[in-house]
Amino acid sequence: MDRRSAAALDAEDPLHHLRGRFALPDDVLYLDGNSLGALQPCVAERLKGVVEAEWGRGLIRSWNDAGWVEMPRRVAERLAPLLGAEPEEIAVTDSTSANLFKALAAAHRLRADRRVILTDDANFPTDVYVAHGLAELTGDLEVKVVPTDEVERHLDEDVAVLLLTHVDYRSGRRHDAAAQTAAAHAAGALAVWDLSHSVGALDVRLDDWGADLAVGCTYKYCNGGPGSPGFLYIATRWHEQASTPVRGWFGHARPFAFDLGYQPAPGAERFLDGSPPVLSMAALETALEVFEEVDTATLDARAGELTGLFIELVDAHLGNEVEVVTPREAGERGAQVSLRHEHAGELSRALVTRGVIGDHRPPDLVRFGFAPLYVTRVEVVEAVEHLTDVLEHRGWDRPEFRTEQVVP
Amino acid sequence: MDRRSAAALDAEDPLHHLRGRFALPDDVLYLDGNSLGALQPCVAERLKGVVEAEWGRGLIRSWNDAGWVEMPRRVAERLAPLLGAEPEEIAVTDSTSANLFKALAAAHRLRADRRVILTDDANFPTDVYVAHGLAELTGDLEVKVVPTDEVERHLDEDVAVLLLTHVDYRSGRRHDAAAQTAAAHAAGALAVWDLSHSVGALDVRLDDWGADLAVGCTYKYCNGGPGSPGFLYIATRWHEQASTPVRGWFGHARPFAFDLGYQPAPGAERFLDGSPPVLSMAALETALEVFEEVDTATLDARAGELTGLFIELVDAHLGNEVEVVTPREAGERGAQVSLRHEHAGELSRALVTRGVIGDHRPPDLVRFGFAPLYVTRVEVVEAVEHLTDVLEHRGWDRPEFRTEQVVP
Repeated sequence: MDRRSAAALDAEDPLHHLRGRFALPDDVLYLDGNSLGALQPCVAERLKGVVEAEWGRGLIRSWNDAGWVEMPRRVAERLAPLLGAEPEEIAVTDSTSANLFKALAAAHRLRADRRVILTDDANFPTDVYVAHGLAELTGDLEVKVVPTDEVERHLDEDVAVLLLTHVDYRSGRRHDAAAQTAAAHAAGALAVWDLSHSVGALDVRLDDWGADLAVGCTYKYCNGGPGSPGFLYIATRWHEQASTPVRGWFGHARPFAFDLGYQPAPGAERFLDGSPPVLSMAALETALEVFEEVDTATLDARAGELTGLFIELVDAHLGNEVEVVTPREAGERGAQVSLRHEHAGELSRALVTRGVIGDHRPPDLVRFGFAPLYVTRVEVVEAVEHLTDVLEHRGWDRPEFRTEQVVP
Repeated sequence: MDRRSAAALDAEDPLHHLRGRFALPDDVLYLDGNSLGALQPCVAERLKGVVEAEWGRGLIRSWNDAGWVEMPRRVAERLAPLLGAEPEEIAVTDSTSANLFKALAAAHRLRADRRVILTDDANFPTDVYVAHGLAELTGDLEVKVVPTDEVERHLDEDVAVLLLTHVDYRSGRRHDAAAQTAAAHAAGALAVWDLSHSVGALDVRLDDWGADLAVGCTYKYCNGGPGSPGFLYIATRWHEQASTPVRGWFGHARPFAFDLGYQPAPGAERFLDGSPPVLSMAALETALEVFEEVDTATLDARAGELTGLFIELVDAHLGNEVEVVTPREAGERGAQVSLRHEHAGELSRALVTRGVIGDHRPPDLVRFGFAPLYVTRVEVVEAVEHLTDVLEHRGWDRPEFRTEQVVP
């Protein structure tokens, strides 16, 4: 595959026209949308309006007149199709960590007779910290961290919650979420999913999977902007019994009655707490518009093609230089590919200097994300050309690339 | 006091030149900075740069190159003087509700042998919800809500935490925080303060008061923008033992080592959790610049003068029409004044239609905030003129003002 044939395939792609919506610099091959999604000019425009007209001139009136009060609900409506869920099942709020805390606390209460949170050692570290934080606070929970392949074996009658991240942030390996959820249910446990590395790129089907709760971030493939709000999903069947420990007026049934008695809002909305971060939320709301033109199956297919092409080219040109640690079966990986190399940090920084932006995950992985909304096959080809050039000439072996500098 | 003498006093005020920093519409008398602070054009400018240059062109590199990673620490440094605290005692993160949950959980752990969270029935309702949420989760806490004047009487050997909001959001009454903290300590309890209605307007002295923990929001007198991040304070003497249940990589000692083992960052920083909301945080960081030119004692004095002038004029002109429910002693009130009127909702909306923006707190209060950074004495005089006019001619008595519409 050369640039010309890649360009021809790009031109035929049903999502190709969406690339023009993103404001990517000309001198950059951006393969880090799995860490921070790209900016769309309409988002910058929206923010300007929210700041200058709504905040600056509308002031407090904008909570009603500009619809700020309804913002969490509107964003939930836009996020729902990306999650295979109903809007009433989603709360857009807080950080992913805070949402996971609330989700685990809710799950713990729904399985109060059981005492184990089971997760795997490939999970994102924060998720494990959060589980431990809850366990220390309640005093009646144990966090069991086992190798990924041993998860099912540990699903016994003590397990209250199976907590997994759909796509491994390092290897890019994708869990079979429907199967794992079914296995959790067969053992009488609830399944809580972290979708940070999936939503906006893969065919997420929370309702179809039968998931109980889920959380995720929106600053990766959803392009909500740095640190944009997280979300929490809770399946409709749990709404009656669901409870959150972190309560606030925006999760109250009648927020502006200022009632000392707590009365949860219906559905997932009770998982809102304080005033929504309007600026970040507005950016996210506008960023999600582009998804109205796609469905998750198409996104997932394109992610599989882009990552597949990258793996194919790396195998062909660099088979002796790097190890592809990401699964070769498209359905078993996310929208990212990780390569193992002894000098991964230097290699990643050398590529960044050339404008090929991926990232480094310690100790020895270089990670590349292929956001299916805007990465092209031509860019995949060009990225492998750069990678080949750097590796062939040991372009990474320079003092300035030895300084450790890992980014979120 | 007429407009002319008010203008003369304004001209002599040491803070008068700061009014020009705020972009308030010409047709508005803004007396709701206690709900949402006003915009400064430099904040709009900063956000444009963060969005277009840092996010749009810098992309993921901006976490390091634009210093996003350090943002929570930088904002803590700017907030510290407003709180009478050290930067290491402050974490800027999450909503006020989420921070209060973490603060109460930390306090509970520091007083594990006691079982009561004591608060007053004038507290902001969310604070009471959060306390109940924690109590339900841990199962070993009781929330006791008593009338404000009975708080000290209930400070017994069962009380783990005294939780109070410094300024009552309805009446504007200000607690004697130093005295209440000392009373809590004398009973062996910790004192946790909610400073949402104080920070940026009053002479807050957390270290001098001997406070243990505190939380607050930054979208009121700190002018951080709608839903800007909250903060958490924890006194240095508790840092060694302090623990948060909501853990995340930004509160880890080495966030980018991606270590499965949790190791809290030093000081208050451990109370950070997920990725910071960069857009909202950048707005806040720039909004706080103006405070470098003032000290909290001056702010507090000016708040006292503005509210005092308002009360004096209301007494003189409207003594028979409305009841001033806010304390008449400057040291006993915040930067707001509430008036009782049977048709408070209609009255508030009639005033808003004239551009006099205060707000309504059910059932019968009209509330006016006097942000000492930008409200002028001339505006106080003009506001009372409008109020007099509306009340004298029953200008509130129109069908269109009867629709209930309360704003945060």
